[in-house]
Amino acid sequence: MSAKHEHIPKITIARLSIYLQVLEQMQREGVEVVSSGPLAKACRANASQIRKDLTYFGEFGVRGVGYNVCELIRAVSRSLGIDREWNCVLIGAGNLGKALIGHREFERRGFRIIGAFDCDPFKIGEEFAGLEVVCTRHLKERIQDKNVRIGVITTPPEHAQRVADYLVGAGIKGILNYAPMRIVVPADVTVEYVDIFHHLYSLAFALAPHKS
Amino acid sequence: MSAKHEHIPKITIARLSIYLQVLEQMQREGVEVVSSGPLAKACRANASQIRKDLTYFGEFGVRGVGYNVCELIRAVSRSLGIDREWNCVLIGAGNLGKALIGHREFERRGFRIIGAFDCDPFKIGEEFAGLEVVCTRHLKERIQDKNVRIGVITTPPEHAQRVADYLVGAGIKGILNYAPMRIVVPADVTVEYVDIFHHLYSLAFALAPHKS
Repeated sequence: MSAKHEHIPKITIARLSIYLQVLEQMQREGVEVVSSGPLAKACRANASQIRKDLTYFGEFGVRGVGYNVCELIRAVSRSLGIDREWNCVLIGAGNLGKALIGHREFERRGFRIIGAFDCDPFKIGEEFAGLEVVCTRHLKERIQDKNVRIGVITTPPEHAQRVADYLVGAGIKGILNYAPMRIVVPADVTVEYVDIFHHLYSLAFALAPHKS
Repeated sequence: MSAKHEHIPKITIARLSIYLQVLEQMQREGVEVVSSGPLAKACRANASQIRKDLTYFGEFGVRGVGYNVCELIRAVSRSLGIDREWNCVLIGAGNLGKALIGHREFERRGFRIIGAFDCDPFKIGEEFAGLEVVCTRHLKERIQDKNVRIGVITTPPEHAQRVADYLVGAGIKGILNYAPMRIVVPADVTVEYVDIFHHLYSLAFALAPHKS
């Protein structure tokens, strides 16, 4: 693919996941073609922004007609790299970890959690959604030859760095970190932080009386 | 507070939650004063960006010395409106809902989940972390006079809109929506979407071979 593709801004990627969500909703409702106006409205976005974002993925729109919903979903999915399966492991089999292991949307979207790890002896050996929790020390040997690309960290913050080191040592290049803690990894490893509190902070900020 | 305060850009709010996370980490490690350089490095941000973001909250920095960590945490928390308690309710007592009810960080950060609701008769009456799951129909009467400001939606996507209508009907002005579904609410209600997949998409995009 073109160099243009590789330089899609991060903010566009973030918006694409919203477009995809809305497009899939439209698909379920039987919408076949949508123009940028109604798509923008459903996404609470700006029509020219959407048109601009979508140009990164080639020319889908037919002027005066709109976008074919199915084709657009397929093209955006392919561009994002989510038209394939991604094997993932999860470390930290607490409440959040268990919720993610059992989350039907993960698998549906091609993110297969194929291993669950924890260092707590009380959790090792437990089973969730068909996965047995294994001691984190065995991570590397357990995932050998399994083409695991993504590691999900759902440990308490104080364990996040050690777990990240295990993941890096096992050759994993993508980390989704739910622990509220920054982690240090080599430059060729990508970390995404899921910060549940920034949304709560934004809400609190929107609701707090600032004119006291 | 000043008009300046009310116009803090959303992207600054998002970054503040990272600064806060890093500052709290520093506080735990006993750091008393930090200059914008090391703070930026720990946040994987740009020092001039941090200085600019922090000016929204008044003048904390002492030129050539740095920021007092405790004071900065206090000021940012106050500005974000998270120096107080926020009563929340949660609707959707599935795996994710239960994980959030049991999440020790919620309460620690002042977001108290004081009610759990679900429309599934098999879940109604169950108890998690001291909360009994109540039928969603009783939402309004149950939260009357309890100063609930935030509703958390953790239902499957197909129930999200109905639940949002219940929350709005009960007078709630802030919604944290974990369901992968856009919802429609009146203009005076703020919705924050927690999209766990956009992070996975970003990872997939970073890891996918684009030069095929």
